[in-house]
Amino acid sequence: MTRFPVPEVPELPEDIQDRIESETEQAGFTPNVFLAFAYKPAQFRAFFDYYDGIIENSALSREEIELTIVATSGANDCLYCVVAHGALLRIYGDDPHLAEQVATNPRTAAIPDMHRDLCLFAEKLTTDPATVDDSDLETLREHGYTDEEIWDVAAITSLFNLSNRMAHIADMRPNKEFYTLGR
Amino acid sequence: MTRFPVPEVPELPEDIQDRIESETEQAGFTPNVFLAFAYKPAQFRAFFDYYDGIIENSALSREEIELTIVATSGANDCLYCVVAHGALLRIYGDDPHLAEQVATNPRTAAIPDMHRDLCLFAEKLTTDPATVDDSDLETLREHGYTDEEIWDVAAITSLFNLSNRMAHIADMRPNKEFYTLGR
Amino acid sequence: MTRFPVPEVPELPEDIQDRIESETEQAGFTPNVFLAFAYKPAQFRAFFDYYDGIIENSALSREEIELTIVATSGANDCLYCVVAHGALLRIYGDDPHLAEQVATNPRTAAIPDMHRDLCLFAEKLTTDPATVDDSDLETLREHGYTDEEIWDVAAITSLFNLSNRMAHIADMRPNKEFYTLGR
Amino acid sequence: MTRFPVPEVPELPEDIQDRIESETEQAGFTPNVFLAFAYKPAQFRAFFDYYDGIIENSALSREEIELTIVATSGANDCLYCVVAHGALLRIYGDDPHLAEQVATNPRTAAIPDMHRDLCLFAEKLTTDPATVDDSDLETLREHGYTDEEIWDVAAITSLFNLSNRMAHIADMRPNKEFYTLGR
Amino acid sequence: MTRFPVPEVPELPEDIQDRIESETEQAGFTPNVFLAFAYKPAQFRAFFDYYDGIIENSALSREEIELTIVATSGANDCLYCVVAHGALLRIYGDDPHLAEQVATNPRTAAIPDMHRDLCLFAEKLTTDPATVDDSDLETLREHGYTDEEIWDVAAITSLFNLSNRMAHIADMRPNKEFYTLGR
Amino acid sequence: MTRFPVPEVPELPEDIQDRIESETEQAGFTPNVFLAFAYKPAQFRAFFDYYDGIIENSALSREEIELTIVATSGANDCLYCVVAHGALLRIYGDDPHLAEQVATNPRTAAIPDMHRDLCLFAEKLTTDPATVDDSDLETLREHGYTDEEIWDVAAITSLFNLSNRMAHIADMRPNKEFYTLGR
Repeated sequence: MTRFPVPEVPELPEDIQDRIESETEQAGFTPNVFLAFAYKPAQFRAFFDYYDGIIENSALSREEIELTIVATSGANDCLYCVVAHGALLRIYGDDPHLAEQVATNPRTAAIPDMHRDLCLFAEKLTTDPATVDDSDLETLREHGYTDEEIWDVAAITSLFNLSNRMAHIADMRPNKEFYTLGR
Repeated sequence: MTRFPVPEVPELPEDIQDRIESETEQAGFTPNVFLAFAYKPAQFRAFFDYYDGIIENSALSREEIELTIVATSGANDCLYCVVAHGALLRIYGDDPHLAEQVATNPRTAAIPDMHRDLCLFAEKLTTDPATVDDSDLETLREHGYTDEEIWDVAAITSLFNLSNRMAHIADMRPNKEFYTLGR
Repeated sequence: MTRFPVPEVPELPEDIQDRIESETEQAGFTPNVFLAFAYKPAQFRAFFDYYDGIIENSALSREEIELTIVATSGANDCLYCVVAHGALLRIYGDDPHLAEQVATNPRTAAIPDMHRDLCLFAEKLTTDPATVDDSDLETLREHGYTDEEIWDVAAITSLFNLSNRMAHIADMRPNKEFYTLGR
Repeated sequence: MTRFPVPEVPELPEDIQDRIESETEQAGFTPNVFLAFAYKPAQFRAFFDYYDGIIENSALSREEIELTIVATSGANDCLYCVVAHGALLRIYGDDPHLAEQVATNPRTAAIPDMHRDLCLFAEKLTTDPATVDDSDLETLREHGYTDEEIWDVAAITSLFNLSNRMAHIADMRPNKEFYTLGR
Repeated sequence: MTRFPVPEVPELPEDIQDRIESETEQAGFTPNVFLAFAYKPAQFRAFFDYYDGIIENSALSREEIELTIVATSGANDCLYCVVAHGALLRIYGDDPHLAEQVATNPRTAAIPDMHRDLCLFAEKLTTDPATVDDSDLETLREHGYTDEEIWDVAAITSLFNLSNRMAHIADMRPNKEFYTLGR
Repeated sequence: MTRFPVPEVPELPEDIQDRIESETEQAGFTPNVFLAFAYKPAQFRAFFDYYDGIIENSALSREEIELTIVATSGANDCLYCVVAHGALLRIYGDDPHLAEQVATNPRTAAIPDMHRDLCLFAEKLTTDPATVDDSDLETLREHGYTDEEIWDVAAITSLFNLSNRMAHIADMRPNKEFYTLGR
C-alpha cells in the first residue's frame, strides 16, 4: 500500500491482531489486504464480517464465489483482487488455468455455461448496474440458481465493487505468493 | 423491495429488531433499506457497521459525507439512495435545493469548489476506478483535505457502490417520506 | 445564467416582453429559461414556437410530454430541465414522486409499462441516436402509440437535446420555486 | 423519408409551400428535409425560423456555421446532415475536400487551429454535454471568438442535435445532388 | 504523412519501388499509403502481402471487401481509409453514393440487408471485439456467407484495425484524387 | 480454435510446415496461433512476416515489445495473447509477476515510468485511436524514445489489434504450457 501508512500490527486492536494472525497461519503469509484495511479498524471489521457473512451462509459453492469475485475484479481492472482471488479460484476450482481465463474474458473461459452466465451477471452488475433487469435474474434461474443464491451473487459482486475501489485508492499490491498459489 | 421477500420484523434476530426500532423512532418511519438488508442478517449487520464505522469516526462533516453519497448514487442512477440520502443532504447541508443539484450534476451545483471536487472525486472513483491516480488525491489535498479524510471519502464512495448495486438488484423503492424531508 | 449577460426585460422586443409577462403571470414567477433565451430574440421565438407547436398539436397527453422531457434531461444530466420540468411532471402526472423517479432511472420508476418504454425510447434517442431502429418504433406501436405520436415523442426528445445543451452552455439555474411546485 | 408519410406539397399551408418553392428555386431541387419537416407544419416553421435566426444574425462566417454543423452531424453519425451540409461546407469553405475531413475527424482535417477547436467544441457539446465547462469556452475566446459567437456555435450545435435526431427517426435520405455539389 | 519522414522512392529496395511504380501506373497517381508504409520496408511488404492475400484468395466480392473496409474505417474515424477505400467502394459497388452512406452509418445506407449485416459485423468486431459471439457469426451464415467468407470478413476488419491505427499515428492524408474517383 | 477447422500440419505448404516445426522445437510445443493462422496460408505468412519484421529490425528491447503486446491485448480482453505473450513478458522482462500486472492495469504495475507510458500509449491507440495526438508522441519522446521506436510501438500495437480480433473470431485458446512458462 503506497498511498497510506501501513499500521504496525502490534499497535492494532486485539481482535484485529487475532484475525491477522489466523489469516497468516492459514496462508503462510499475511495477505496485504488485511494490513491495508487495518488502517481503519471499524472498516476492517465490517469488511471482513461482510465477506465472512456471505461465505459462511451461502448455498453457492466456494468456486462460484471466487468466479464471481474474479469476474468482478477483472471488469474493474483491479490487480490486487485479480491476483489474490485468482489464486483462490485456482484452488477452489481445482484448475490452474481458470484465473487468467475469467479475469480476461469470461466469454472465452473453459467453464460450464451456468458459470459463464454467473460471471456475465457479475460483469453487468459491475459495469452497468442501472440496466440490470428481470431478464438477467431469469437467466440465472434457468440454470437452477435459487433467488437466495442470486442475492448472494449480487452481494459478492457489490462487496468487490467496494473492495476493488479501496484497492485502487490504497494502491494495494498483491503478495508475491498469490501469483503462484494453486498453479 | 419487489424481487425478494421482505422479512417480518418480529421474526428477525433481536439485535436487528432493535436497530430497526431505533431507526424507526428516529425517522418517524422505517426506511426500506433496513427491511431489505434484513433478508440476510449477517449482511445487514456488516453493512450498517460499515456505515456507522465511517460516520462515527470521520473528520469529514456529515454534509460532506452525504454529498459524497448523493454524487455516487447519482452517477449510478440509484433511485433509493438518491432520494433517501438526498433528504439527508438537504438536512445536513441545510439547503432545500442541494439534492437535485448534486444528484443531477455536481458541476452545476451551487456548492463551494472544495465540495464540487469532493463530488467529482466520488464520481470518477465510481465510473472509472482504474484511472484514479495521484493527481486526483492531490486536488483534494489542495483544498485542505487530509489523507485520512480522503480515505474516508473513498470508503463512503466504495460503500455506496456496494449499496447502489444491492438497491438495484433488490429493486428497493424509497419511502415516500424521503421525498419531502428537509424541503 | 452565469456565462452570458441576462437582458433587461424592458429593453426586449415587445412580443418577447408579452410572452415573459404572460408566463410570469401564469407561474407566479419568471422561469429563468425565458430570460436566458431572450439573449437572442430570434432564437427565443423559434424555441418557444417549437415547444408550443408540439404541445398544442399533439395527441400525446401533457403527462407523456413531460415524462419524455424529464427522461431526456435526466439522460443529459441537465439540472435546469430536470428541476423545472420535474415540477411540471409532478403537476401533470398528479404524483409528487414522479420527478426523481424518472430523472434518476425510468427502469425503477412506478409508472405503467407504456410510459416506461416511452422514457426508454427518449433515453436511447438521446444517448445513442444512430442505433435507433424499426424495432424501437415497434415497441411503442405495441403499446398503442400511433406513428404521429411517435413522431411527437421524437420531436420533444430532439427539442430537449437542443434545450439541455443550451442550458449547459448558458449555465441556466432553476428558479427556487420549481423545487417545490407540485409536491 | 421511409418511416412517415411525405406530405403532398400542394396540400401544405401556403407559407410552407412558398418556402419550399423558394428553396427549390435556389438549389435547383427540393432538399428532402423540407418535405420531411412539412409533416408537422408548426415544427417546420419553428425549425427553419431557428436556423434562419442564427444564420441571419450571427457574426460567425457561413463557413464556420457549416463546419459546426458537419462536426456535430459527424459525431452523431447522421447521413442526411453530413451529406447535405457537407455540400454547403465545400461551397462556403471553397474547398472540395472539407466535408469528408470534418465529418470523419476534425483532428486530421486540413483546417486552421481556430476552426479545429470550433469543431472539437461542437463535438464535445454533442457527445458529452454535461462536462463542457469554462475551460472549453476559454479555448474559443483565445482564438478571438466573442461570447456572442460562442453562444451561436452552441446554438447551431444544439439545433443540429435536434435535427440529427429527427433525421434518424424519420430516416431522411439526402438528395443525390448533395453528393456532388461543390466538388 | 506529417509525423515521420517520407522516404525517397529511388532509395527504397527494388521490390518496393516496383510495387509503388505498378500502383502508380494503375491509379494514375501514387496513393500516399505506399509512401508512408515504405518508411519500414519489412512492414510495407507484410502489410501489402496481407492485403493481397485476402483479396486474391477470397470468395467475397470486391464490393463486399470494400464495404467491410469502409465500415471498419468509419467506426475508427480514419480519414485516409474512409476516403481512399470510399473511392474503391464507389467503383466496385458501381454506386457514386455508397462511400458516405457506409462510412457515416451502415444502418441508413441504401444497401441490401446481407451487406448491412456484413458492415455491422465489421463495426462490432472493431468497437467491441471481446463480445463478438456465435450469434454474430450465425447472422452472417443466415445470409448465405460460408465460414471461410466469415473468416475473410474478420481478416479484413482486423487488417484495417491495424491500418487505421497506423494511418492515425503517421497522420496519413488521402491524395486529392481519391475524393472524386468513381463519382 | 473452436470455430474453424484446424488444418493438418502435413497437408500445409512446406514453408508453413517448416515454420511450425521450428517454433515447436524452440518452444517445446506448438503454439496454437500457428495452427489457427495456417487455415489461410497467405495470411499466415503475412502475419508472421509482419511480426518478424518488427522484432528483427526494432531498436526497442524485446521486453518493451512484449509490454506493448500485453497492454494492447489486456485492453482488448484477448485471452490467447494475454496468456501467450504474458509468458514471453515474464521471460524477456525477467520478472515472474509482470504479466498479470500489465494485462490488468499498467497504472498499478511495478514498472518504470517510461514503460508505464509505453503501455498507456498502446492502450490509448487501442481503445481510442482517433484521439491520439502529438502530445501522446511527445510523452514518449520525453522518455528518450526516438521517432523510429515510436513508429514500432504503434506498429506492434496495431498488429495486435489485428491479432486480438482474429483470436476472438477464431476463438483461439492458449496452450496450457504458456500459463506457467517463466514463473
